[in-house]
Amino acid sequence: MNIFEQYESEVRSYCRNFPTVFKSAKGAWMTDENGRSYLDFFAGAGVLNYGHNPDRIKAALIDYLAADGITHSLDMYSVAKRNFIERFQEVILKPRNMAYKMQFPGPTGTNAVETALKLARKVTGRERIVNFTNAFHGMTLGSLAVTGNGFKRAGAGVPLNNTLAVPFEGYLGDDIDTLDYLARMLADDGSGLDTPAAVILETVQAEGGVNVASMEWLRRLRDITREHGVLLIVDDIQVGCGRTGKFFSFEDAGIEPDIITLSKSLSGYGLPLALVLMKPELDEWAPGEHNGTFRGHNPAFVTATAALEFWADGWFEKSLAAKEKLVSSRLNAIIDKLGLAATVRGRGLIWGVAFEDAELPGKISAECFDNGLIIETAGISDEVLKLLPSLTMSEEELVRGLDIIERSTASVIKSQSKDAA
Amino acid sequence: MNIFEQYESEVRSYCRNFPTVFKSAKGAWMTDENGRSYLDFFAGAGVLNYGHNPDRIKAALIDYLAADGITHSLDMYSVAKRNFIERFQEVILKPRNMAYKMQFPGPTGTNAVETALKLARKVTGRERIVNFTNAFHGMTLGSLAVTGNGFKRAGAGVPLNNTLAVPFEGYLGDDIDTLDYLARMLADDGSGLDTPAAVILETVQAEGGVNVASMEWLRRLRDITREHGVLLIVDDIQVGCGRTGKFFSFEDAGIEPDIITLSKSLSGYGLPLALVLMKPELDEWAPGEHNGTFRGHNPAFVTATAALEFWADGWFEKSLAAKEKLVSSRLNAIIDKLGLAATVRGRGLIWGVAFEDAELPGKISAECFDNGLIIETAGISDEVLKLLPSLTMSEEELVRGLDIIERSTASVIKSQSKDAA
Amino acid sequence: MNIFEQYESEVRSYCRNFPTVFKSAKGAWMTDENGRSYLDFFAGAGVLNYGHNPDRIKAALIDYLAADGITHSLDMYSVAKRNFIERFQEVILKPRNMAYKMQFPGPTGTNAVETALKLARKVTGRERIVNFTNAFHGMTLGSLAVTGNGFKRAGAGVPLNNTLAVPFEGYLGDDIDTLDYLARMLADDGSGLDTPAAVILETVQAEGGVNVASMEWLRRLRDITREHGVLLIVDDIQVGCGRTGKFFSFEDAGIEPDIITLSKSLSGYGLPLALVLMKPELDEWAPGEHNGTFRGHNPAFVTATAALEFWADGWFEKSLAAKEKLVSSRLNAIIDKLGLAATVRGRGLIWGVAFEDAELPGKISAECFDNGLIIETAGISDEVLKLLPSLTMSEEELVRGLDIIERSTASVIKSQSKDAA
Amino acid sequence: MNIFEQYESEVRSYCRNFPTVFKSAKGAWMTDENGRSYLDFFAGAGVLNYGHNPDRIKAALIDYLAADGITHSLDMYSVAKRNFIERFQEVILKPRNMAYKMQFPGPTGTNAVETALKLARKVTGRERIVNFTNAFHGMTLGSLAVTGNGFKRAGAGVPLNNTLAVPFEGYLGDDIDTLDYLARMLADDGSGLDTPAAVILETVQAEGGVNVASMEWLRRLRDITREHGVLLIVDDIQVGCGRTGKFFSFEDAGIEPDIITLSKSLSGYGLPLALVLMKPELDEWAPGEHNGTFRGHNPAFVTATAALEFWADGWFEKSLAAKEKLVSSRLNAIIDKLGLAATVRGRGLIWGVAFEDAELPGKISAECFDNGLIIETAGISDEVLKLLPSLTMSEEELVRGLDIIERSTASVIKSQSKDAA
Repeated sequence: MNIFEQYESEVRSYCRNFPTVFKSAKGAWMTDENGRSYLDFFAGAGVLNYGHNPDRIKAALIDYLAADGITHSLDMYSVAKRNFIERFQEVILKPRNMAYKMQFPGPTGTNAVETALKLARKVTGRERIVNFTNAFHGMTLGSLAVTGNGFKRAGAGVPLNNTLAVPFEGYLGDDIDTLDYLARMLADDGSGLDTPAAVILETVQAEGGVNVASMEWLRRLRDITREHGVLLIVDDIQVGCGRTGKFFSFEDAGIEPDIITLSKSLSGYGLPLALVLMKPELDEWAPGEHNGTFRGHNPAFVTATAALEFWADGWFEKSLAAKEKLVSSRLNAIIDKLGLAATVRGRGLIWGVAFEDAELPGKISAECFDNGLIIETAGISDEVLKLLPSLTMSEEELVRGLDIIERSTASVIKSQSKDAA
Repeated sequence: MNIFEQYESEVRSYCRNFPTVFKSAKGAWMTDENGRSYLDFFAGAGVLNYGHNPDRIKAALIDYLAADGITHSLDMYSVAKRNFIERFQEVILKPRNMAYKMQFPGPTGTNAVETALKLARKVTGRERIVNFTNAFHGMTLGSLAVTGNGFKRAGAGVPLNNTLAVPFEGYLGDDIDTLDYLARMLADDGSGLDTPAAVILETVQAEGGVNVASMEWLRRLRDITREHGVLLIVDDIQVGCGRTGKFFSFEDAGIEPDIITLSKSLSGYGLPLALVLMKPELDEWAPGEHNGTFRGHNPAFVTATAALEFWADGWFEKSLAAKEKLVSSRLNAIIDKLGLAATVRGRGLIWGVAFEDAELPGKISAECFDNGLIIETAGISDEVLKLLPSLTMSEEELVRGLDIIERSTASVIKSQSKDAA
Repeated sequence: MNIFEQYESEVRSYCRNFPTVFKSAKGAWMTDENGRSYLDFFAGAGVLNYGHNPDRIKAALIDYLAADGITHSLDMYSVAKRNFIERFQEVILKPRNMAYKMQFPGPTGTNAVETALKLARKVTGRERIVNFTNAFHGMTLGSLAVTGNGFKRAGAGVPLNNTLAVPFEGYLGDDIDTLDYLARMLADDGSGLDTPAAVILETVQAEGGVNVASMEWLRRLRDITREHGVLLIVDDIQVGCGRTGKFFSFEDAGIEPDIITLSKSLSGYGLPLALVLMKPELDEWAPGEHNGTFRGHNPAFVTATAALEFWADGWFEKSLAAKEKLVSSRLNAIIDKLGLAATVRGRGLIWGVAFEDAELPGKISAECFDNGLIIETAGISDEVLKLLPSLTMSEEELVRGLDIIERSTASVIKSQSKDAA
Repeated sequence: MNIFEQYESEVRSYCRNFPTVFKSAKGAWMTDENGRSYLDFFAGAGVLNYGHNPDRIKAALIDYLAADGITHSLDMYSVAKRNFIERFQEVILKPRNMAYKMQFPGPTGTNAVETALKLARKVTGRERIVNFTNAFHGMTLGSLAVTGNGFKRAGAGVPLNNTLAVPFEGYLGDDIDTLDYLARMLADDGSGLDTPAAVILETVQAEGGVNVASMEWLRRLRDITREHGVLLIVDDIQVGCGRTGKFFSFEDAGIEPDIITLSKSLSGYGLPLALVLMKPELDEWAPGEHNGTFRGHNPAFVTATAALEFWADGWFEKSLAAKEKLVSSRLNAIIDKLGLAATVRGRGLIWGVAFEDAELPGKISAECFDNGLIIETAGISDEVLKLLPSLTMSEEELVRGLDIIERSTASVIKSQSKDAA
């Protein structure tokens, strides 16, 4: 690890929590260069919903490369791209009655968000974007301006503007419907909130601490934005592609966003790819008005097309419901058994355990790592232990991971009590 | 192509100039789904310096995938990443006496530029960045603010600020050293130019019309910035990785930038990857202060490491000098022979033919496509025919392409004369 | 009035509501060129707290001019300025145990606000300023950015930034303490609110519709800002100088702002003058770092010094309490008697009648004008009839004005019922 | 002076150069409280073009006050305002064939500039304003963004944006026509300069060091701006109202600005007043879209109307030409006689002596003060001795002041040589 310490920037972070050098990975498991394997409850921050190097997708990718399929072509037409577009329309959009046009920006989440913000501003002719407290939308200048984390924001080095943060559901306690505030600000021309181009949100704030919006709240937000002619952008980069149990995280709410951003698990294999979906009437782009070198990365189209087969019939979605139940009930059982001052929240296969003592999740994560489990923390003070297992993980593997969590938590608490004594 | 027209956003652009569906590619050639092959003088906008799907790199990639090498790991340590860091230091930096730390931002050029701008602002505590007329640095909000193109800038939908554009070399005619202006603005506290954090530049402005900075001008720019405590960022995304004949475009000037950005051809195979090099004393990042999901893409590390072998001894660099000569002299010969109102400019294997009649390059590009050659235009009015062949193209292929250019140009001019008559 | 319509910009506004040409004025009365007199319940938007052309102040002014006292001297020392500074410390600050340094910016309210914002940003090194919904702080770019009115904001022609609007007391209904929201935003580093330099507020929002902050709310705001190291700026331009019954509007709350802005009635005679008070430890200005040609206008110092005599003993303050009672009880009686769907709010001698029917106040104001009373509306939809009589008005004059209001309101309502029938 | 040091902010500046307490003033003379008189070559930074307390204007003012003429009326119609509008049209605009509408913003220069910038942005729908190096347009946020002085700009505490500074005439040496640069930036859509709403300039940069634009340069600037649909704003606050020998500073150039700002000497008596003139077709303001409490200050209308009589026939203008000659030739003679490394520049009665040794002007100013003359410095390093005598000063007084300048300069240089020896 000397090489990294000597030559890689101090900005490196996850490697500090999981201090080993990884070599290979398969399914739910990562293996380091010493041959030790770790069960992965992190899934590359939501990139690996189908697990590491899934065989069916891998085969498609290697076949494509072996045949000298075109690798890089900017936004020129390619067979791989056409296949993906066709299949995405057939498997995902049409069955859900969703009419959207597709744009492939630079292949990262923040590029998709920047694209969505630009488009919303262009179409409405307004500058302001409303985002929510504790939102995370990316680290380039436009996306960072709609991100809540003060430490990350300060890294901009310039004031972040043309945005306004309003409280996410539950931010002001259970008694207050935070949308009352947004509704009032939009309705009142004296509020100081210039009518915004759009509201952008994650239906489950993952980095922000696994904060889960209710379906009612989402529906009301859609109503409010529609009433004021404000676009609604759902950033489904982390919790789309099945993470909440359906392909899109907002399906259960029955709402129709104006713009949707996808990335992370879209390629299904960890290859960079991003997609912006927009209502057809919003597609006011001029050719080349927004671009990017790696927009439309063909190997990623190949893997993404293969990954769509998970959604071609109902079994995968059904399996997620069962796993949701398993994780949810077990986490609550752990809380109860260990008598933890903590609450459990989540949807599908994204779950958070929010501890009153913000020191605990970090310690538990470290103990889990020692016990062979990779799991991360979230929230502004890292006060949430965040479970993000791959969706393809077997129930046995899930249980195994939950066992490690229980054991590690018990051990951390025990040693904490000792320290206190 | 109906699928694309129906479902893909109107923003698509290159496909409009090269209207066919590509399927495979090898070396200097791209093949469409009808089996027609095209010689590629575009190289994916500078991504494919080593040609399409080069065998040696392809083999390394397929081996890695087949062995279930780890694909995605954010900024966790991986064997693939360590190999790349080590080899990049050995092959590229150390032989050039360059001490730099390495940061892997999100895997696109604009992510690298945003990283560089953030770092420069953080380290200096200043907000302003100076860029040059006709610069192109990317399309996310921070990068777009240092880009010159008015059409692209307008797409931001918000005023682009905290930057200042100053004239590139030659912008005000041959008689005026444009650095006099920058020097005066920096020296004069009444100039209205708040002391900037950094100056960012491309040594050859590719998108801007193949505008080539002289070595003297680069050296003076380095002197001026150093004198005023202003950082110098060289954006070598399009013209680094050998495009100008050396690995870095500024080597012949003998200058040492404070920050360097690389992407495009870095992975050597069209896989998204980006790298920011910074002088070690500038590495003031806190862990995670800047991040991105696909920072550090392992398959791209594998191909990038394989691509470094082109630079491990001198033969490749030497071959580029010969090809530079070939292209340069042939282009000048074409101008002379056809009596074109045009000038030729370039370095290494990036060349532009700037026509007085801005309509011509577009027509020539279209004619070339019909004749089996892919070639693009550049410049704010598309007034420049831009040659960007892969560096591995054989001299025979280069000549073949140049022949098509000559023939197509002659044909366009002939039909133009006919129209006029 | 042709001259005005022909040559004066369409921006003119109050003249549209009070369409006559005024010639002279005395005490509570304004007289037009036709010799008609109007009782003035507007007081020049709060500039004429001591009435029109009060004799004692007028004498001091004419004596000064006649003696060729220095008129204009920028910020050079003058006898008139020294007299004012001394007397202001003796009569106003010292008896209230207030230690503040004095800065004379350009002689308008917005200049004072811009000064306060600059100072707060300079001292804290932060950019963001928090303001309240429906705030009004001025029309130059810095002040406009902390003003709520959407129509006025749009006039900026550029996005207004580096500010954040939060809800004023009562903005979200009686059940919600809006400071909970501010407190949470400041405490949570993930809120998206970059720690601000300052919070700026009017204790009574005059233009915003006579919204009155309670003393408890002001105290809690002071506590919250202090806790987070955020400066508190009280903009007392419209409701200072006695308007709420005490010289400063925040005296009853017992709080100590970090910065206070005064203008409007400060000169006591309608001459432009502005003053910024700052805690001595905040006076980090370098000489000339902020300036303005008419900073320190000597004739205004002369009248302002004379006006201070109103505050030299207790009788004036006592008289205001009696008048407050008179206006408040009479307004409530009118509401009751006429059965109006309206609420009464105010402090001292600033009172608003907020009508459910936003059309009414405008009609009542017009009817009052016909009946010889000048009175304005306020609030984002002009839904509030705003009473702003001079503080020196006799009780008889106050009653006379209130009589006209009652009569005019009754008449408007009657004709409205007729129209409906 | 203790009172000032104890209670007035450290921001005070001119009082540091002229450390005495002034009491009265008449014509060309200011008198301090000790009875010492000073000849005034500063004229309140250009406010007192007609001298201190001129009798004719003073009489009009005292009469108005004595008759209880209305003092404060916001933008309601008043007799005093009508008189001024009528007379300004008759005496100033109509004889010069100038059709402009009039707007009275808050009564300071910076309020006028903010108004002009807002209007230009509103009418064009663009955000960017171009200003010149070393410009000074005011200290509120909008005006400061078009001001060059780095020290003043830094006081903003936020990045100053939506503007671009370009070189004033002569900024890059005598050989370079700086308008070539502006013309190129405007014509080239790749320049990075978003098409601006307006260009704002002072025809003579007073604070910037008495930099004088030539009539040819002004005409070309007008042509360039017109060609690109960019508005031209002439800020005539300091050098209008006769300072350059004509009422407007641009009259000799024969150009017609789109917007003109006036303040300082407009009231003719040191009372705050400001005026924005706009071509009638630009008057797109909605009522009240821009406002300000002291817009339209009636006593200032009275004095401004009286001051217009200076321009009602030709004698005053003629007298200025003679005085210009006197000052210009004497300054050049002084330079020659004393062998100074300095250049003389100016127009009308604004003159600067720019010294190679930037320390000298400050010392000369101090010496002049000891010798009974008030004179200031200008330029970013205070390298210019700036003469700004009132226009009504007699030739004898001018000579007397010039004598003091010569004597003081000689004395400073002599003592400098002594120090060096």
